[in-house]
Amino acid sequence: MDERLKKQLDFALEVDKEKNILRQTHLSGHGRNENDAEHAWHMALMAYLLKEYANEPVDISKVMLMCLIHDVVEIDAGDTYAYDAEGLKTQKEREDKAKERIFSLLPDDQKAELIALFDEFEAFETPESKYAHAMDNLQPLILNNSNGGEDWRKRGITAEQVYGRQGKTKLGSEKLYREVVDKLIQENISKGNIKD
Amino acid sequence: MDERLKKQLDFALEVDKEKNILRQTHLSGHGRNENDAEHAWHMALMAYLLKEYANEPVDISKVMLMCLIHDVVEIDAGDTYAYDAEGLKTQKEREDKAKERIFSLLPDDQKAELIALFDEFEAFETPESKYAHAMDNLQPLILNNSNGGEDWRKRGITAEQVYGRQGKTKLGSEKLYREVVDKLIQENISKGNIKD
Repeated sequence: MDERLKKQLDFALEVDKEKNILRQTHLSGHGRNENDAEHAWHMALMAYLLKEYANEPVDISKVMLMCLIHDVVEIDAGDTYAYDAEGLKTQKEREDKAKERIFSLLPDDQKAELIALFDEFEAFETPESKYAHAMDNLQPLILNNSNGGEDWRKRGITAEQVYGRQGKTKLGSEKLYREVVDKLIQENISKGNIKD
Repeated sequence: MDERLKKQLDFALEVDKEKNILRQTHLSGHGRNENDAEHAWHMALMAYLLKEYANEPVDISKVMLMCLIHDVVEIDAGDTYAYDAEGLKTQKEREDKAKERIFSLLPDDQKAELIALFDEFEAFETPESKYAHAMDNLQPLILNNSNGGEDWRKRGITAEQVYGRQGKTKLGSEKLYREVVDKLIQENISKGNIKD
């Protein structure tokens, strides 16, 4: 087998480990914790279905790929919960190391391409990145809401924390922020699932 | 919330159930059974990474979306193991019903679009469908091979069965068939993991 193909398959096998990285979000139907691979799949599919609501036109193929790879670094760095202040302090350093190790499994051109895409997602500047981030926020929100807000309630999450994260959804989609995110947060505050 | 958006979100929540549909394949590292959502994520990402090996030029965005949705019907119809002769007899009927119910959650235009894409995958005629099928076969092969061929060995799978399925990979990618699939099958036959 030629070296290029071997490297591509090594990477393909390595990313399988994302299926073992658990998130704080639970599956609908009061299910188990979700893992990164499932989350990425769900985000990519939702990105396609909801693309008409992106604030700016997006290259949807790029968004989907961004969604698929955006958590690859968590294979080494683990999932850092959105409301874990301590973990967030070291997140960047842990993820930078992981990024270098994991994408280096690929041939150089693909390593460069995927790191650029990963960095673009992280930088939160392009229309594609902003919209992909909106999906990264919206996807766990609809799961958590479907479970009666358990993931917030059990951890005593506050409205300030939720808005701090979910407020950024509007940078990717004003419409989804206004008609879904804000409404669901308000409903969950009024039900006492999110602390006011 | 307007009716269109409500339907899109209902579909997005419904497909979450794919995360509970278990396949026969096990995760690398002798892990648990893989589920459909993880499999779809892995296939879509591999499709992108290996696109240079497709026999014919493919619209990779279309392939990725095809990969993401190709197992949605299994929410109702369950996973039919590639070597389950009885299950395969009723698979089409079960999946057709599921297809109608699940995609009908979407607005009509998106229902029609995704059913067309799903049917295109199933029909195995276009370059995109053939290449997506190659991924559908290659992805579990590399996992199973990484686990010492356990999924074949424990079920007493024969070379004829494996070639019957994996042989079609060459319709999507001659190169991946020749340099990966055929080699790994031969190795696993010689190790006794696949019955000769």
